[in-house]
Amino acid sequence: MSNPSLLILAGDGIGPEVMAEVTKIIGWFGARRGVTFDVSEDLVGGCAYDKHGTPLHDDTMARAQEVDAVLLGAVGGPKYDSLDFSVKPERGLLRLRKEMDLFANLRPAQCFDALADFSSLKREVVAGLDIMIVRELTSGIYFGEPRGIFTEGNERVGINTQRYTESEIDRVARAAFELARKRGNKVCSMEKANVMESGILWREVVQRVHDTDYPDVELSHMYADAGAMQLCRWPKQFDVIVTDNLFGDLLSDAAAMLTGSLGMLPSASLGAPMANGRPKALYEPVHGSAPDIAGQGKANPIACILSFAMALRYSFDMGEDATRVEKAVEKVLADGVRTADLLGEEGAVPVSTAQMGDAVVAAL
Amino acid sequence: MSNPSLLILAGDGIGPEVMAEVTKIIGWFGARRGVTFDVSEDLVGGCAYDKHGTPLHDDTMARAQEVDAVLLGAVGGPKYDSLDFSVKPERGLLRLRKEMDLFANLRPAQCFDALADFSSLKREVVAGLDIMIVRELTSGIYFGEPRGIFTEGNERVGINTQRYTESEIDRVARAAFELARKRGNKVCSMEKANVMESGILWREVVQRVHDTDYPDVELSHMYADAGAMQLCRWPKQFDVIVTDNLFGDLLSDAAAMLTGSLGMLPSASLGAPMANGRPKALYEPVHGSAPDIAGQGKANPIACILSFAMALRYSFDMGEDATRVEKAVEKVLADGVRTADLLGEEGAVPVSTAQMGDAVVAAL
Ligand SMILES: CC(C)[C@H](C(=O)O)[C@@H](O)C(=O)O
Ligand SMILES: CC(C)[C@H](C(=O)O)[C@@H](O)C(=O)O
Repeated sequence: MSNPSLLILAGDGIGPEVMAEVTKIIGWFGARRGVTFDVSEDLVGGCAYDKHGTPLHDDTMARAQEVDAVLLGAVGGPKYDSLDFSVKPERGLLRLRKEMDLFANLRPAQCFDALADFSSLKREVVAGLDIMIVRELTSGIYFGEPRGIFTEGNERVGINTQRYTESEIDRVARAAFELARKRGNKVCSMEKANVMESGILWREVVQRVHDTDYPDVELSHMYADAGAMQLCRWPKQFDVIVTDNLFGDLLSDAAAMLTGSLGMLPSASLGAPMANGRPKALYEPVHGSAPDIAGQGKANPIACILSFAMALRYSFDMGEDATRVEKAVEKVLADGVRTADLLGEEGAVPVSTAQMGDAVVAAL
Repeated sequence: MSNPSLLILAGDGIGPEVMAEVTKIIGWFGARRGVTFDVSEDLVGGCAYDKHGTPLHDDTMARAQEVDAVLLGAVGGPKYDSLDFSVKPERGLLRLRKEMDLFANLRPAQCFDALADFSSLKREVVAGLDIMIVRELTSGIYFGEPRGIFTEGNERVGINTQRYTESEIDRVARAAFELARKRGNKVCSMEKANVMESGILWREVVQRVHDTDYPDVELSHMYADAGAMQLCRWPKQFDVIVTDNLFGDLLSDAAAMLTGSLGMLPSASLGAPMANGRPKALYEPVHGSAPDIAGQGKANPIACILSFAMALRYSFDMGEDATRVEKAVEKVLADGVRTADLLGEEGAVPVSTAQMGDAVVAAL
């Protein structure tokens, strides 16, 4: 079997800096574990626009379809804010998600014990928190047609369409139930079935998938507004949450912030299995491109490193190695190593992005 | 001038119980302040369905259009969960909002000092918090067409449409800027202009209204996912937030929960001025019908009482009287009077719904 292949799209802002630390981890696996990844690199987002006039070149798209996994840093920055919608950095990311058909976006919201005091929530509310949000990523209002800004009479109207087919709901529900079986065996599905017909269909299909194939998993349904409330009140009531693209965007960001570990949180976006049995996959940190601190060596590379750990687990069936990376991160945190984002006002001296990466490698 | 008129729609669950306490306050105004309200009562939600087979009878709708203000308790309950979408209790509420054209939903998220420890957030994050969320309430994905569940090929698809016209955005933006001028003079507008064209139009129109007529108000824009994060991280950065119907639903509920004062929070839904200069208006607590505790005299009537205070302020130009009611509530809380929802586990003995109402009347 050939080496596992990785396409690195470091992107904009702090993307390249945090990705540089991931390549150290990749190097460690080659040197110490005899697992050599075939790594290629390319552009996405604003930097791709600067070079090619598009946030994702067709060649890059084609390459992404071929590799075993894509690692993405972050996209966007103020420099690109005034670009036309169709060539904004985000469109590159959205094209990858759509064309690779990465329908299941896994966003763990985990509170690292060493960081529990960073949360705006009380320690007892978040300490030990470990939930998994499964967000549908290739459909819903992000991609539905018709969409656009049209003229009607003497004014303009902005239109977007929420659209979910039964099979789109079915497959992401299955992903959630499968994950739940490996965790707390509980799924909570969130929609607005009280006001949206697409939510009614969502609820019905999730229930059917449950009753037919996952009756052993505990399933509940919650309106998304109540879900937002409950996440803020007592997040530990949840194990796996499954929800649509737009609700997932808001709810997973809120959950990430609640943990106090925002700079630490990875994500995986998974599609259908390829010929080699591996799922189409893209891994990226939950945080953005943080243009305000880009290029200063201040960024926290842990979210990106943990995204690589997710790649080990979900793309390469290397669960133990994934755990090894995660444990190394925990050890480094327990040792008090902190990038600037992990220090309070009074704080000790922070380590740089590179120092944090080196510390994780050392802890491996 | 004739007496100000009120239509009371107590609704389902704890609605009637909490509304009974509001009628005590109304009685106090008649007896002590010589302000007599012409009060009529009618049904909305499940109880209307039970009697008429519809969650809002046409006669009730017509009456709501005529009065100066509607006071609503809450709608819904498990008994009605299996009803068809078109006659669910919520449809009664949504019909009122739509036909009265109540486009500006004002949801204060306020932390009562006596209750700051109830928040899942740290005291310093929420103590003194006072933000106003202005949610567009008559358009967007709640009402856009086409909508429904359709068959395409061999499967069904659930569709809803987000639709905003320039004038719909314009008028709710104005409402937000006007409010801001009476508060902290700051508005943050939230949408997903990075992925939705309706969000692009939203941002553009809010900016134009600002530049043309409210250049003195500080305006910022934030993506709604980042908004959800920032609300959880440091809500005090906000003064007035203006957002669409669906984002407003989630964000205002999250904000309400963060304050720790959920059972305390009122809301006002305002439309265009009527012939008498008063806006079309409906006032309701943010909490729901709480079927689990309905009929037990346990519910906290304060959110409903404060909704009446908002009616005094926004419908009847009785700002001083509104403040008087609000101060009475604060006094009662400071005195340690607590309904069951306001007590921790160890807690002292809670007062009943009626005792809380009496305490507020006494404090007036
Ligand atoms: C950058 C943006 C298009 C994206 C989204 O809205 O999905 C981001 O917020 C995310 O959650 O990954
Ligand atoms: C009851 C429901 C229809 C309603 C909504 O979604 O608007 C409620 O959640 C609210 O926020 O007032």
